[in-house]
Amino acid sequence: MSKHDSAVPSAPAHREIPLYIPDMPTAGELLPWLEKIDESRWYTNFGPLNRLFEETVRRYFPPTPAVHVTTVANGTLGLELALAAFDLPPRSAVLIPAFTFVATATAVVRAGLTPVLADFDPASWSLTPEIARVALEQIPIRVVMPVTTFGFPQPVTAWDAFSAETGVPVIIDAAGAWDSQPIGETTAVVFSLHATKNLSTGEGGIVASADPGFIERVRNTSNFGFDAGEVRHIGTNAKLSEYHAAVGLAMLARWQRRKADKFKLLQAYRDRLDKLGNPPVYQHGMARIVPSLLAVRLPEQSDVAALAGRLSEQGVLTRQWYYPPLYRHPAFAALPHAGELAVTREIAGQILGLPFHMGIAPTDMDYICFWLDRLRS
Amino acid sequence: MSKHDSAVPSAPAHREIPLYIPDMPTAGELLPWLEKIDESRWYTNFGPLNRLFEETVRRYFPPTPAVHVTTVANGTLGLELALAAFDLPPRSAVLIPAFTFVATATAVVRAGLTPVLADFDPASWSLTPEIARVALEQIPIRVVMPVTTFGFPQPVTAWDAFSAETGVPVIIDAAGAWDSQPIGETTAVVFSLHATKNLSTGEGGIVASADPGFIERVRNTSNFGFDAGEVRHIGTNAKLSEYHAAVGLAMLARWQRRKADKFKLLQAYRDRLDKLGNPPVYQHGMARIVPSLLAVRLPEQSDVAALAGRLSEQGVLTRQWYYPPLYRHPAFAALPHAGELAVTREIAGQILGLPFHMGIAPTDMDYICFWLDRLRS
Repeated sequence: MSKHDSAVPSAPAHREIPLYIPDMPTAGELLPWLEKIDESRWYTNFGPLNRLFEETVRRYFPPTPAVHVTTVANGTLGLELALAAFDLPPRSAVLIPAFTFVATATAVVRAGLTPVLADFDPASWSLTPEIARVALEQIPIRVVMPVTTFGFPQPVTAWDAFSAETGVPVIIDAAGAWDSQPIGETTAVVFSLHATKNLSTGEGGIVASADPGFIERVRNTSNFGFDAGEVRHIGTNAKLSEYHAAVGLAMLARWQRRKADKFKLLQAYRDRLDKLGNPPVYQHGMARIVPSLLAVRLPEQSDVAALAGRLSEQGVLTRQWYYPPLYRHPAFAALPHAGELAVTREIAGQILGLPFHMGIAPTDMDYICFWLDRLRS
Repeated sequence: MSKHDSAVPSAPAHREIPLYIPDMPTAGELLPWLEKIDESRWYTNFGPLNRLFEETVRRYFPPTPAVHVTTVANGTLGLELALAAFDLPPRSAVLIPAFTFVATATAVVRAGLTPVLADFDPASWSLTPEIARVALEQIPIRVVMPVTTFGFPQPVTAWDAFSAETGVPVIIDAAGAWDSQPIGETTAVVFSLHATKNLSTGEGGIVASADPGFIERVRNTSNFGFDAGEVRHIGTNAKLSEYHAAVGLAMLARWQRRKADKFKLLQAYRDRLDKLGNPPVYQHGMARIVPSLLAVRLPEQSDVAALAGRLSEQGVLTRQWYYPPLYRHPAFAALPHAGELAVTREIAGQILGLPFHMGIAPTDMDYICFWLDRLRS
């Protein structure tokens, strides 16, 4: 045994450290809510649990601007219906980051519009108002859809100012940014409640805006477009069931406690990562929020795939979230780009998602950090 | 009190007889399935309960042709993805009946195609292969999408023959026809699992076909279009959660017993309706199936809205299902028609949905039939 090996922390009790384990309510926590469904015998179509869930969600937002919300079957359908509510000409340009989950782009296409791929800012790992302004000088963008990369909130005041200045509306794809992303005066927000998010219903979503007419339009189109018994604007079925509303209510009942626990976990993780000889680079703003996912940048790795493979051999499961960037998927290869996407090309391949969930013990963090340090190139 | 009044059956114990009460599993029936989710900690994305639900569903179909199934978040999204799987040119014509729930048409539009409205057959209340053949002589129809009106199955052998003869594929919008609608050799089927259906998950759907490639395409596009980690064909999120799969499994566990009970209810109802001085007209095939909904035709009523109002005053809640026909919704007013739609114009307004669910007692049926008879014009 070499001197080096003597420093290897003992392997975790479990064979592998999973990347993500959703932290969802147990059957026992769901039971009281399911009994309410037995009483109401209302199972979907904006039933009493859905209304209570919406009202509870609404109270999590800052008091101004007054927020209106409607639930949807999932965040992707929420984006599709929010985009459709603008009644834009077919194939109008929607600016999105090239570094995002594919749903950002599929939602634009399914709304009959054309995604235009933008670069991201190397500090926030996000499409910013500054990037959007430059893009708008080259391309007649009709909507900007920035993304809360890894759950980091977007600056709504800056986006409101962008819209006021340019006349271009902004919808934030706030997939994993529950509890950290406010709405703007004009900027609307769509959350995902997928199982990998801090607040989840298994599958679900929330559309939030200061504009009650916009929310009513999204709500109607989530129910085929019915408005007083008639279909005026064609929609689909994107309704959240009472079962999923029950899961959401059970999650909200314990969210503040879980948030505190997850924040502590993140601090403990960062304490260890920061002590490495070559600490990873974080997304700007890391100290202030509780992200759904923990991703770090390893600037020396031009492509972290090989590192992920070596970590996996040691039982540490990681993932290159949002990788490859959209333009490398066959379906998006022909999309227009706003500029060179130089930052995306340089940095996207250096970002690695580490195991981050409430099943991670201090010894797991020691183990992960040890191997991350040793196996980096 | 007049002699006539003495024949009035006593009012039901409850103030009103509801049109429909979903017959869904109780919290207690769901609990063992939810405990399985606690064990797997898998909440969506084709988890173990979803796979078991799909396999259980598959075994309900006749052994030939071999059936492949995939679940979807709801039937409407199933139709959208099934239509998209044909890769047709934008705005290609899809023949659908004018007398159907609006989702049949919204799904066509959301798939980027153009609904062409067809008439229905006065016996089956359905778009038939004969009607489609006549339409095809006038309009270059690319897909036919007949509907299992009120849960009555479509003749798949005849539709297979239609496709073989014309080269035009057929997808059956089999919304409420669980357990009665087989798949064809070439004809695919999309079921809804909405709360108003005999088999329900609250919100959900099933796409079934003999073509494994077609089902794989629908499954991939229900998960954004991912195929081996890449997006080739753009999809959306239409995945069924493990919670909804749990509800489906609990329903299937008791379906045979419920089916027998509902069949008995239907017989008892028809015994009473058939004894009326002026019995209503049924959809052809009524004796053989257990529909999700019970609708009757009252040929003397040119519009049953007034009758429905008078019944409501007596505490009998009814509904003009699928009414008004699609062409009377603003969003569908400009759609092309295949022919005059003469039967739809004559008959659609004569059809009335009666209360039909397991909460209906024999005295309720007496009461409903008495007032239906007395209040008809």
